[in-house]
This record gives sequence, C-alpha cells and structure tokens, in this order.
Amino acid sequence: MSPAPAQRGREELGKHEKYRNSTGREIRELCRAGLWEDSTAGMARNFYQANLVILPKEYAFEFMCFCHRNPKPCPLIDVTEPGNPEFARAAPGSDVRTDLPAYYVYREGELVEERTDIKNIWRDDHVGFITGCTFSADAVLEESDVEFGRIETASGRFGAYVTSISCEPAGRLHGHMVLNARPVAAHSVARVVEITSRYPLAHGGPVHVGFPEQIGVDLAKPDWGQDRGTFGNYVPVFWGCGVTPAVVARESRLPEMITHKVAHMFVTDLRI
Amino acid sequence: MSPAPAQRGREELGKHEKYRNSTGREIRELCRAGLWEDSTAGMARNFYQANLVILPKEYAFEFMCFCHRNPKPCPLIDVTEPGNPEFARAAPGSDVRTDLPAYYVYREGELVEERTDIKNIWRDDHVGFITGCTFSADAVLEESDVEFGRIETASGRFGAYVTSISCEPAGRLHGHMVLNARPVAAHSVARVVEITSRYPLAHGGPVHVGFPEQIGVDLAKPDWGQDRGTFGNYVPVFWGCGVTPAVVARESRLPEMITHKVAHMFVTDLRI
Repeated sequence: MSPAPAQRGREELGKHEKYRNSTGREIRELCRAGLWEDSTAGMARNFYQANLVILPKEYAFEFMCFCHRNPKPCPLIDVTEPGNPEFARAAPGSDVRTDLPAYYVYREGELVEERTDIKNIWRDDHVGFITGCTFSADAVLEESDVEFGRIETASGRFGAYVTSISCEPAGRLHGHMVLNARPVAAHSVARVVEITSRYPLAHGGPVHVGFPEQIGVDLAKPDWGQDRGTFGNYVPVFWGCGVTPAVVARESRLPEMITHKVAHMFVTDLRI
Repeated sequence: MSPAPAQRGREELGKHEKYRNSTGREIRELCRAGLWEDSTAGMARNFYQANLVILPKEYAFEFMCFCHRNPKPCPLIDVTEPGNPEFARAAPGSDVRTDLPAYYVYREGELVEERTDIKNIWRDDHVGFITGCTFSADAVLEESDVEFGRIETASGRFGAYVTSISCEPAGRLHGHMVLNARPVAAHSVARVVEITSRYPLAHGGPVHVGFPEQIGVDLAKPDWGQDRGTFGNYVPVFWGCGVTPAVVARESRLPEMITHKVAHMFVTDLRI
C-alpha cells in the first residue's frame, strides 16, 4: 500500500534533504547517470535552478524577444548555440539532453510525452533556453523573517494559476501569464517585496499583491499543484512562474516545444 | 573663423540646455522634422537615451544573445519586429528611420557613411535594437555628491577606449569591449559604484576600477573623444560603452550594421 500523501510528502522531503548542500554539477551528474528522476525542490540550495525551454532555431529570436519583454515570468539565464546541448556560461560541461530529472514534450501546444532524457529527439536545429526559477528565492525566504501562511501540500509549494494578464507578445508567440501564489502575513508584505526584488533571476519582485479576482484567479482552483494551504488572513502575493512558456506553446499552437517536467529543474553552477 | 573648441563647447551646451526638460517624444519629433542634427547630450534629462544597432534579421538572434551575454556594454532596452521601424514598448509611435539626429552606416565592418535619416536604406529584413546609454546615469550623477576630476572637453565627456577585455561571443559575433573612463575621487569610488549599480539600463556599475594597464588602456590615447581632463590623483573608473557593437562589426567583419552617430542617441519614453 502506498503511503498517504502527507506521509509521502515527508519522505520525499527527507530524500531531497540529502542533496541540500550539493553543487549544481552534482545534481546534473546524478540526473545524467539516471539516478534521479524526482523533483529538484530543496536540492543544491546555493545554486540557481532553472526552467528549460527547447525550440527549433526558427523560433529562437522570437523567444529571446518574448523573454526580454516578459522578464517576470521568463528571466533569461542562458541560451545554447543552435544544436549545441551545453549551457556554456551557466553550466559549463552540461548536457541539456540528459541533465534534468524529467522532460515534457509539447506538440501543437499539447503535452504529448514525458521522458527522462531527450537524447533521441534532440536535433541540430534545437536551441535551449533556461530561465530562472522560484526555488532559488525560496532558499533565501526560508531563512528570512517573512511570515507565510501554512503550506501543507506534499510538494511544500502553493499552486500556480493561469491569469487574465496577457504577456507582451513577440512575433508568433503570445499567451497568458502564469503566476505562483503565496499567502503572506500583512506585516511581511513589504519585506517579501524587498527580498524577492533582489533576485531578478528568480522572478524578482511580485507581479500582483492583493486581489486575485482582478487578475482572473480563483485561489481555490489552481491550474498546477494542489492548494491545501491557508490564505485566510494572509495577503495573496503572486510571482511570475516558469510554466508560462507551456501556456504560450498552447495558445500560440507551437509545432514543438520541449521543457523540463514541472518542478524537475535544470540546476546551474550559478551561486545565488 | 570658427570659434575655438572651448568656446564652441560652451555654445553647444547652451543650445542643448533649452531641451533639458523636454520629453523623449519631443526630441524624436525634432529629429524627425529635420530640426536637430546635433548630439543629444544633456537633452530630455529625465528619459533614458539609447544606442541604436540595426542588423539584418539573419543576425538578430545572435545579436540578442550577444547583448544578453554582455549586459554591461549592451544593456538591451527594446527590439523591433523585423521590418517594423517602431520601438513599440520603449517609444510607441517612434520611427527608427528618422528619429535620431544622425546615423553611421558600417559595411564589412568599416564606417562608410554618415546620414541624418535612413529612410532610403531601411529594409523589410532589418531589425532595430536599442541599448542603454551612459547619458542617463549622468543626469543622476550630476545631482549626486560624487567628486569627479575636471572635465574640460568640448563634449563635456571623457574618452572611450577599446580594451583588451574580450566580450562573450555569440555565434558569429565577437569583439573587444569598449569602456568609458572617468576620474573619480578616491573617497567617492564606493559611492559612484552604489549609484550607477542602480541603473543597469545605463550600463550599471563599473567594469573596472583602478589599473588601466590591466585592461590594455593608455589613458592618454582614447579611441573616441578627446581626453583633456585630469586623472592625476583621481581613480580611473571604467563603465561599459555603447560603441562596443561598432567594434564587434569591425572585428567580426559584419556585412552591414547601422548605428546612431556617436553621442547622437535615440531618446526613449522611459523615465529614469
């Protein structure tokens, strides 16, 4: 019998705890060796983790423009040369085809496949992009005096929501912005803005503070992740979310996009 | 008889003074109407000014990567859609073909022509890029308590130097970094770093502080601009310079690049 979700959550966190002080390279090597197919939450806490997007070269300039125009959901960290699977600046020696625990493949905007490597589908015209991830700021927030509402989900994280905010389009790329919500004690709101604004590569400061309905969000119905936390007397604060490109793939009907699996990130060599 | 340089310098500053509090749009309209072909130094002080680079679409993705990898010399502000001459986010309604006082045209890396508009040479495959300019931080520094060495040049600015620092390459684009030097009183060095670091779009904090010879610079021999200021007991502090892409054009032998004329910038609608 598989353990109850709360029990499983604690076990998972324990398993991740072992790699808390690992380097980015160590996590990538673990994935490359086929020894880790799980979420990277809480691992290599001192290193930036990143969302992955792989697109055909034909879309590369447009996606660069998209990231530049939408830095809150898509803070660009590094770009590969076309056909070269290495993120040469953020993670020298890396191989994007093997160094993540799991991948999603989207075709015509639909998620069609989940894989643990992409060796057989990587092509010479593929370009890889990594954009910053909220896990990186989490490490700093954990040590801070910011008071959050209780988080009881197995993943230890709150839900992500497709909002009514349109991203700034770029060529053929357009879509609604995805935001992560966290409940913040009123007396901590200014502080959490100050702290997260210092980390633009981890989505920076919030996109919205206070009224979910103004951005088309029903807190009880996240599009990703369970929301079993408490908002109650806490202020809902929303940060850019790296799932946004998946929504862009769907809304723009992109022929092909490969990404990391949600929460299964590329861990860089960049220290926070 | 034309006036001596120092006299001419004062007249020029007077002429610019009139537009000190103009908006970016007003300066662009002045240029578009053919009423201004001079430097934009000191004009529209509350708005970001920008370096311009126009390249064929074939180079657009590589230049985006180049800017992303070299944010100190090339802090990217906005990019046009291919063939569309409007910077739609930084300056709605702008027309890159007419809205600058003067342009340089480079072919095979050599400066071959200076123009006051580019209406007849703009093509459907052209993409425009604007990157931040040091003029924007100057306005803030002028009001600050930072003590600079004396500046006696006609332009009121110190020289720019091609350094021995190689930019991070991107595809076919490579070249040495150009830096601006300013003499800063030793007691002001930390302060000038603090202030300029707040303005990443105006080149941000310095790239080098202290030893010009370590970056291949002879202060007496600037590559652009005269240096008749005093370094003496002042610390030489170097910031990224928007002339860098012209050096990239030369070193990478780019078939075609159009830029602003030095110090004749694109003035945006973005407030500092």
